[in-house]
Amino acid sequence: MTLVMVEEARNVAMRALARAGVSQSNATTQTDLWLDAELRGIASHGLLRLERIVQRIERGLADPKTSGEREWLGSSFLAVDGKAGLGPVVALAALDQIMQRAQETGIAIAAIGNSQHIGMLGWYAERVAKAGQVGIVLSTSEALVHPWGGRRALLGTNPIAIGVPTGEPEPFVMDTATSIVSMGEIHDRAHRGVPLEDGWALDVNGAATVDAEAAKSGAIAPFGQAKGYALGLAFELMISALTGAALGRDVHGTLDADHPCNKGDMFIVIDRARTDGLAGYLDIIRNAEPAQGFASVLVPGERGRALRAKRMREGVPIADPVWATLQALADAKEPAA
Amino acid sequence: MTLVMVEEARNVAMRALARAGVSQSNATTQTDLWLDAELRGIASHGLLRLERIVQRIERGLADPKTSGEREWLGSSFLAVDGKAGLGPVVALAALDQIMQRAQETGIAIAAIGNSQHIGMLGWYAERVAKAGQVGIVLSTSEALVHPWGGRRALLGTNPIAIGVPTGEPEPFVMDTATSIVSMGEIHDRAHRGVPLEDGWALDVNGAATVDAEAAKSGAIAPFGQAKGYALGLAFELMISALTGAALGRDVHGTLDADHPCNKGDMFIVIDRARTDGLAGYLDIIRNAEPAQGFASVLVPGERGRALRAKRMREGVPIADPVWATLQALADAKEPAA
Repeated sequence: MTLVMVEEARNVAMRALARAGVSQSNATTQTDLWLDAELRGIASHGLLRLERIVQRIERGLADPKTSGEREWLGSSFLAVDGKAGLGPVVALAALDQIMQRAQETGIAIAAIGNSQHIGMLGWYAERVAKAGQVGIVLSTSEALVHPWGGRRALLGTNPIAIGVPTGEPEPFVMDTATSIVSMGEIHDRAHRGVPLEDGWALDVNGAATVDAEAAKSGAIAPFGQAKGYALGLAFELMISALTGAALGRDVHGTLDADHPCNKGDMFIVIDRARTDGLAGYLDIIRNAEPAQGFASVLVPGERGRALRAKRMREGVPIADPVWATLQALADAKEPAA
Repeated sequence: MTLVMVEEARNVAMRALARAGVSQSNATTQTDLWLDAELRGIASHGLLRLERIVQRIERGLADPKTSGEREWLGSSFLAVDGKAGLGPVVALAALDQIMQRAQETGIAIAAIGNSQHIGMLGWYAERVAKAGQVGIVLSTSEALVHPWGGRRALLGTNPIAIGVPTGEPEPFVMDTATSIVSMGEIHDRAHRGVPLEDGWALDVNGAATVDAEAAKSGAIAPFGQAKGYALGLAFELMISALTGAALGRDVHGTLDADHPCNKGDMFIVIDRARTDGLAGYLDIIRNAEPAQGFASVLVPGERGRALRAKRMREGVPIADPVWATLQALADAKEPAA
């Protein structure tokens, strides 16, 4: 691990993206998202992802310039063709439009197909909630999760994030995959050579494994057994129905450098939120007596936020191979004009 | 258990509700909901609930006639004051309005406060999906779930149902509490004297218990540990922010006969759904090779639907005390006019 100050990490990432043909504005958006993941301790959704995006741009699978095409299908439904644009660039352009529209209509949705990986969903949910609105963010991914009772990966990790303004200085934000761990965590552990926990994954033959590399070609368990499976499947079906995204094992392009990215993303913004009583309720939870074996009762998102504050001051630990790759991509000689 | 044909159960329930002053139309809606739960094997959300609703009407805590007051706060946000009306009566009046509105705007929400228990959420999600739209239904309840790492009940069981049209004759419908079991299941087991499973619940002192009666005054675990807790808390906060519902231990009135009902309900209907590929994907899941210890891979909602078909033909098993109570309420002498 190398401890890197945020501004240095930002500069290196921005240079690498600029070399790949990404405009300054788009590179800022993409880098902000990755850095926020690094700051919160979600390295799996951080700068590790840069190399793949650069490869995808080089191969014509990602468009570094576009923010996609947006069309209103009714006053509150924004259909978005990402045109292979960068995930957060396409998503933010759509999100800002539906946040504004929801002020008027009360609720609005953006259904996005054909963009790159949109990264950590909590980043978007926090943006919405900071603006005083409720945000629900859903996304699909490559099939890496087995149905409850199955042995083969047939569902994405299909995460959800929800942001709610609470009247406190920072909003409530939760963000979780419907898999027992995120695909990113599997990749990060494979990258770092760290084993998985029991019950997390099956290998390619459907046998239990703690080898992260084996799990990459196998299947992760849904969280919460049948209930988490039901939620993940509902998200896969709903997102496909609304965005035209591929399903199950036909989904590609958030991890590889070979296929167009055909997963889907869905943002719902709801206005008219009142915060009466919410802060007091959260205080009751924070101050609740912990169960045996727990030091305290946590509110989702707050540990990551505290870590972010610390890492803003002290720097972000980045895995050495990731940092070396970033620097190489940033400092390679400019191609001849 | 008494095996009762659906039409007989319907007649008895309708008579009991009529005696309590419920109009024929409202009684039909309320009874349809309870019977659908009985048919699907969710006795906890079935006719067991009738006695309490009758008591609440008698005590002036529930209004048997009203369908609430609805106000559009923007073209796509329907704010509903249930005026203490019956849950499904208030909910359906709102749901039908937003289903129609979503055809035009693409998405619409109903945020409902101050109605009685709305029952099994899948019933509503199925209605929406059968109309070719996506339905998301959320509700809060009395605090019966402990935060992950806590020992005291501070959250509702906060269920979610999602319905998606798939191009198959029946839509996809999932419906699950964010507790490891539903509050209804705890009550049903207490009613039947059946113990809980390990890890489901804590007693009033925060110690693990398998006694359903003890769990009623204690706390149920969230499903999926920290992840299910995060979801349940997000729903509690979001629903309160949008409906004005009470929070945590301030929620009353879905189980007791002493307090106004101050939980909240939230319906989102999304139009513009396409079903391309969904049926084929569900077939892949149904036909997937099961893991060791499983006979097959199930699609959520289908076991209940098969049971419903069987019970339509063969009758519904109703617990003897529940059936005796229903008959007594239905056949009591009419009060003097």
